[in-house]
Amino acid sequence: MCGAEYPAGPRAPMTCPRCGITGILDVQYDYRAVARRLTRRALARRTDFSEWRYRELLPLGARAHLPALAVGWSPLEPAPALARHLGLGSLLLKDDGRNPSASLKDRASAVGAVKALEARKHTIACASTGNAASSLACMAASLGLQAIIFVPERAPEPKLAQLLTFGATVLRVRGSYDQTWDICQRSCERWGWYNRNAAVNPFLVEGKKTVSLEICEQAEWRLPEWVAVSVGDGCTIAGTWKGFREMRTLGLIRRAPKLLGVQAAGAAPVTEAFRSGAALRPVEPHTMADSIAVGVPRNWKKAVDAVRESGGTMLNVGDDEIQEAMRVTGRLAGVFAEPAAAAAVAGLARAAREGVIPRRAATLAVITGNGLKDTRAALDAAPKPMDIPPDLAAVEAALAP
Amino acid sequence: MCGAEYPAGPRAPMTCPRCGITGILDVQYDYRAVARRLTRRALARRTDFSEWRYRELLPLGARAHLPALAVGWSPLEPAPALARHLGLGSLLLKDDGRNPSASLKDRASAVGAVKALEARKHTIACASTGNAASSLACMAASLGLQAIIFVPERAPEPKLAQLLTFGATVLRVRGSYDQTWDICQRSCERWGWYNRNAAVNPFLVEGKKTVSLEICEQAEWRLPEWVAVSVGDGCTIAGTWKGFREMRTLGLIRRAPKLLGVQAAGAAPVTEAFRSGAALRPVEPHTMADSIAVGVPRNWKKAVDAVRESGGTMLNVGDDEIQEAMRVTGRLAGVFAEPAAAAAVAGLARAAREGVIPRRAATLAVITGNGLKDTRAALDAAPKPMDIPPDLAAVEAALAP
Repeated sequence: MCGAEYPAGPRAPMTCPRCGITGILDVQYDYRAVARRLTRRALARRTDFSEWRYRELLPLGARAHLPALAVGWSPLEPAPALARHLGLGSLLLKDDGRNPSASLKDRASAVGAVKALEARKHTIACASTGNAASSLACMAASLGLQAIIFVPERAPEPKLAQLLTFGATVLRVRGSYDQTWDICQRSCERWGWYNRNAAVNPFLVEGKKTVSLEICEQAEWRLPEWVAVSVGDGCTIAGTWKGFREMRTLGLIRRAPKLLGVQAAGAAPVTEAFRSGAALRPVEPHTMADSIAVGVPRNWKKAVDAVRESGGTMLNVGDDEIQEAMRVTGRLAGVFAEPAAAAAVAGLARAAREGVIPRRAATLAVITGNGLKDTRAALDAAPKPMDIPPDLAAVEAALAP
Repeated sequence: MCGAEYPAGPRAPMTCPRCGITGILDVQYDYRAVARRLTRRALARRTDFSEWRYRELLPLGARAHLPALAVGWSPLEPAPALARHLGLGSLLLKDDGRNPSASLKDRASAVGAVKALEARKHTIACASTGNAASSLACMAASLGLQAIIFVPERAPEPKLAQLLTFGATVLRVRGSYDQTWDICQRSCERWGWYNRNAAVNPFLVEGKKTVSLEICEQAEWRLPEWVAVSVGDGCTIAGTWKGFREMRTLGLIRRAPKLLGVQAAGAAPVTEAFRSGAALRPVEPHTMADSIAVGVPRNWKKAVDAVRESGGTMLNVGDDEIQEAMRVTGRLAGVFAEPAAAAAVAGLARAAREGVIPRRAATLAVITGNGLKDTRAALDAAPKPMDIPPDLAAVEAALAP
């Protein structure tokens, strides 16, 4: 935030040497030069359907070694029945659960892993409640890097299963997410591993922003008025905003959507800071939405700034609203969202109900992760199966109203 | 198999009235007319990146109402490190775990659900060990149909979580897969529901075959010598073959790949029938790969014919080989495969080892489902995490060789 600038390159710092650890750097591009190459027409001709189609807006060298896995270009799908049910004019779902490791974090981890290779590091580490970790393990596997993952004790089993299958070294830390984060940070300093933590690594947000670059193109440049994103550490919504802002800077869109930042009521320090205008006050997180259960969000300031700059707002939803959003998103749109992803839909529902956004607004929810990543939560939220013996009378009885 | 033909249309039968329930019909097209429209050049210009891009080869009316979810066009990804490890010349992974409900079955269920709407049915049913069911529930949700799903008792929890979240009515049958199948069949007859069971519904294979149509196009018409597909009921490999055969009929490829049909050693009646040339003898299935744990495969004959016609072969792999394939596919390619999907990779490994296919062969494995669908199996197969307190000395100790 001090305004200092540093040239890019493999030896560039990640956080500002002047501001210290909280001063994560921002990657800048020569937007005039980019605008000449990245036109609507040029994009329409590109056949790379992955996040790498936006090479001019990514911090990669010309000879960067990219993973073989297709990252990004997740589908943007209309959900008319769900929109009607929630009182929205229209609703698009950007289904990032369709990424290689089934979450939006793959966008960031792919850039992180490519940058690690560029810096000639062969070990890459992160601390994560789950999605950042499994995506890093996935991308590391694809590029032949060693991944070391620090996870807190309460990581859901499916995310652990991914990590271990992708061959990561998994260190399960007896402590909170915040302690897990600190020990990872210190280990990277101690052993010189590449650090994938989004709160200190400025390149990751560059991957995350591709979600909005794609939204602009996939919506054929007719953007919804509101885009809902759930907020934990704050990095994802900050990245989403950077993408829209850059598209506007390039003249590819005229107006960016308003952001609706959604936190779980039991872990809502960013919403609190947004409302009070004061500095963040850490909380003890309590929510079923583990991917956004963050008590000390490292990127809260960028998140607050992003929402404010977009002209949007923030609100909180209870776990019961998240569960209801999981059910209706599944039943009415055929999309299985993990709790943190369903929180975005729950936020739109509440915003429409309370008049925070106009009824009949054109909206979009970013589905940040697949429900298969936390099936325990889904089973808690869902109705129960009926057990029957194998005969017709039992079927008839079970289906009787 | 009797050669009788019936005209298409909403009232067309599903199985041959002359042959009875075992005589599932085969959808035929006017291939001469199709060949004029479906050229390599025409395909290269299409911008619909889903299974619907092959409309001429799908049994859909012109005004068919399609789901909003993007089905098919899953990535075809090279896995060079895995190929080296297994002694293969090259290996492509067709990752159908990236479909809406995370399995290849989405291709079939999408066609089934569209056909149900065409037939003005609003309830659609199936019996399934999991993937066919969750994909049907997903597509039914997307199209506003009611899904009734009969599942056997041993369905893995993640697949149940999907079904219930997609709003399906789930009847869990106290009995075997075969009893579950029968009660579904009888219920469809009794209440007039649309039947999605691949063993009786001839349209589903039309959806499945799109996997090979895509492979041809994505491989830029240079096909691998061997394509490995795991075999349970036999429908998927039969569909895969139909796609290649049609591409050859249309003159779009000159030579189709050889199929490697892979069964789990504990549920291998199709391999047995392939080897003996005799009729199928049912078995009691015992394998961790629940999606292919089928004791009485309804489509065994089509599977055997497909493999034979392709000039390929069949073999079996043990659960230990499947677990090893899950680990190496994750660690060396970054792809998390469910056990039935990893079986295809395990089959290639064994085939290379035993000289069934030439070493250095160009190969492809169809990853039929995402590992997130059976995380219990993945955790059983994977190495274990290390538990540490949050301090550097513990990290050092854990990583010491």
